Amino acid sequence: MVAMGLSKGNQTGVQQPAMSEEDFSCVDVAEFDAISINLKPKPSEKYPGKLHAQSVAKRLGSKQGLIYLPSKKSCNYEDSDQEVFFRQRRYFYYLSGVDLPNCVVTYNIEKDSLTLFIPPPNSGTSVIFNGSSPTPEEIKAKYDFDAVELTTALPDFLTHFAHREKGMIYVLHPYQIPPKSTIMQSITLEDGCQSNLYIPPWETSKLQPTMDAARTIKSPYELKMIRKANEISAQAHLNVLRGIKHFKNEAEVEAVFAATCIARQAKRQAYGIIAGAGENASTLHYVANNEPLEGRQLLCLDAGCEWDCYASDVTRTFPISGAFTPEAQAIYDLVAQMQEECIAMCKPGVNFRSIHLHAHAVAAAGLMKLGLLHNGTFDEIFKSGASVAFFPHGLGHFLGLEVHDVGDGTNSLLSTHAKSWLTNFHSILQDPSSSSVSVLAPNMVITIEPGM
Amino acid sequence: MVAMGLSKGNQTGVQQPAMSEEDFSCVDVAEFDAISINLKPKPSEKYPGKLHAQSVAKRLGSKQGLIYLPSKKSCNYEDSDQEVFFRQRRYFYYLSGVDLPNCVVTYNIEKDSLTLFIPPPNSGTSVIFNGSSPTPEEIKAKYDFDAVELTTALPDFLTHFAHREKGMIYVLHPYQIPPKSTIMQSITLEDGCQSNLYIPPWETSKLQPTMDAARTIKSPYELKMIRKANEISAQAHLNVLRGIKHFKNEAEVEAVFAATCIARQAKRQAYGIIAGAGENASTLHYVANNEPLEGRQLLCLDAGCEWDCYASDVTRTFPISGAFTPEAQAIYDLVAQMQEECIAMCKPGVNFRSIHLHAHAVAAAGLMKLGLLHNGTFDEIFKSGASVAFFPHGLGHFLGLEVHDVGDGTNSLLSTHAKSWLTNFHSILQDPSSSSVSVLAPNMVITIEPGM
Repeated sequence: MVAMGLSKGNQTGVQQPAMSEEDFSCVDVAEFDAISINLKPKPSEKYPGKLHAQSVAKRLGSKQGLIYLPSKKSCNYEDSDQEVFFRQRRYFYYLSGVDLPNCVVTYNIEKDSLTLFIPPPNSGTSVIFNGSSPTPEEIKAKYDFDAVELTTALPDFLTHFAHREKGMIYVLHPYQIPPKSTIMQSITLEDGCQSNLYIPPWETSKLQPTMDAARTIKSPYELKMIRKANEISAQAHLNVLRGIKHFKNEAEVEAVFAATCIARQAKRQAYGIIAGAGENASTLHYVANNEPLEGRQLLCLDAGCEWDCYASDVTRTFPISGAFTPEAQAIYDLVAQMQEECIAMCKPGVNFRSIHLHAHAVAAAGLMKLGLLHNGTFDEIFKSGASVAFFPHGLGHFLGLEVHDVGDGTNSLLSTHAKSWLTNFHSILQDPSSSSVSVLAPNMVITIEPGM
Repeated sequence: MVAMGLSKGNQTGVQQPAMSEEDFSCVDVAEFDAISINLKPKPSEKYPGKLHAQSVAKRLGSKQGLIYLPSKKSCNYEDSDQEVFFRQRRYFYYLSGVDLPNCVVTYNIEKDSLTLFIPPPNSGTSVIFNGSSPTPEEIKAKYDFDAVELTTALPDFLTHFAHREKGMIYVLHPYQIPPKSTIMQSITLEDGCQSNLYIPPWETSKLQPTMDAARTIKSPYELKMIRKANEISAQAHLNVLRGIKHFKNEAEVEAVFAATCIARQAKRQAYGIIAGAGENASTLHYVANNEPLEGRQLLCLDAGCEWDCYASDVTRTFPISGAFTPEAQAIYDLVAQMQEECIAMCKPGVNFRSIHLHAHAVAAAGLMKLGLLHNGTFDEIFKSGASVAFFPHGLGHFLGLEVHDVGDGTNSLLSTHAKSWLTNFHSILQDPSSSSVSVLAPNMVITIEPGM
């Protein structure tokens, strides 16, 4: 979603998806110049929370311990009776696949046991207003847990772990440790004696970087979800293109995009829809989408829905009238060339920084050819970083449970919001392979989205 | 949004709107059995923040002091780089009309002076990503402030007030008092001496109930906003009715409703769209909206957009096939009768509790006529509260900056989420005029939404 989006082709580069042909078929959508994937999901397939937990545990390097992740809580807006828009905590979702509030998931590393704790079913007036909430049995049938308990059983569960099992309890942040009252209690042992709770060390620093690393490598199930989200977004882009000649305002573009996604059960966008006409297209994260189309040449539509918490990210720029001017066509073709050559470079083992540099090399050469950069040799112009003025943002980012998905390390070029891209450019130029975190690996999902 | 919505007619009863015929025209929308209002807003009209501030000050009963209201801050989701969906604090909006984050509005009661503080304009990379933010001059031209300053001027402003002016600083909640570092500083007086800041008493209990009381009586500008929101929602309901025969799933209903609002620049819903088919219609706040329409008789659509932070609330139930069964028609007509008779009772000075009781009287009589309640006289059946089993929720609520807008007192019947409606019913029955807060007054805006 960062690119200005003078781009074409399928923007999402998936590395060696581990999927068989049975899972989906690729269909070339000629009028959109994109690949649409027809998914044939098995309805019985469950979210692979356990597989993900095992991947995290392996990277934690400990054979004992408990991973403890609370879900997002439901709450109302301040001074209001309206519920806050619910967005699940992604780390909780990665181990559970559950999009409900007020739950906890735990993974016992030694026992290889994944347990979900859900709130007690609602009753009385709450049922009249909100319907009935799922029971442990319903959750167990639908998901891949070894056990499903009520949250009321959590204190005893933690007490038991603290007394009887070895290892630390891994949490993302100190504030996610349950309140002392939940875990500081005496228990009656099997011999009838009372015992005070042994508080195991809470480990608060290792879990997040470990989960971030695990999350960069997508499981086959995750790849399907991301493809499904992108498929719906592609349909939504197509519907906008079909209607664009009749639209009067950017708001109608947003409306058609959102409606296409909602009608296909993708109720949430992965990020705010960006539908910028004319000069609005040059604000990368423009979200007002409320200005007339008349008298404006191009529209940049950067929008992608979520599918079961997995993000898509598709950006396209097109002429509102249906035809490019020669100038716009020239820039469009140059960005398309940047994108296509960069996508072709995406292979396991390649450092993403060198791909980013290549995009700038294509940009510099193209801008020289168009006469927009001159007074120097290619080498001089390229090394000056002049192309950064035209392409001032990242080339792409990880895509997954976040549209800018978590990466393995904080300095990854896949992070999009660097303070100064010119500084970035020069640091990459000095050492394109400087950081190991930018090396592509099988089953990473990244975007390639140059822009101008 | 609480009613099950077997209702017809314009659901929003506006008491004596103080608007001239120039402001809008009413058009009967025959196919929807509703009144659509064509608004002709004057584009130059400014949000009446000062008028609202004066109304609050008058009710505070103090001739001195400063009202201090911070806006909602912008922030990202936890462990994510995605910005949290922005919903302005309603109390801040009521005195400012400004839908931007990280601002503060103050009203000096003695000086009758309304000041907005905005963050310094963004610069550098932020402009590339987010565009330029408004300057004080742009804000001043667009809104009704005596002064617009940068938030960097706030410490001096508060220091000056504390030193030079009289009265308390009124805040909604203790946590909205600015941090001590902002206000605990020494200043240089005109005679050159240093002086430590005099901290005025922060008043944290009076502002909220006073503003709640002020907000129950809508200004002419507010009435226009609410009418505009309802007009767009009516169009969205119409578009659903036009398409319903072609839809396969509740999700398409949600899509068409949302798209109609977004295309008309009403980007936000006042509450989650409720589109429940068949038995889903009996969950009052059903929001999944993801089940097939096939084989289901009725659809309940309870949905209303926001317009400039003002809510609408429209509920309709209709047959998916286009024709009611005789049974559904009978219940529909009964609820329509409840609604129409209750709307006719809405006059200044009438206690809302007596209107609620009347709805139950109509319900009891109607259900007896249909043979659904029997084995008793009307009086016995009515007094037993048996109709509460069919109509288990409030008759309506205030509508304004919240869909369930704030009221004057916590026990108002206009509040919708009472724990037990049967208990409520019996308490009203004993004393229909028991609470003064339920008395209707000119320019209140309420919903009348019986359901079954």
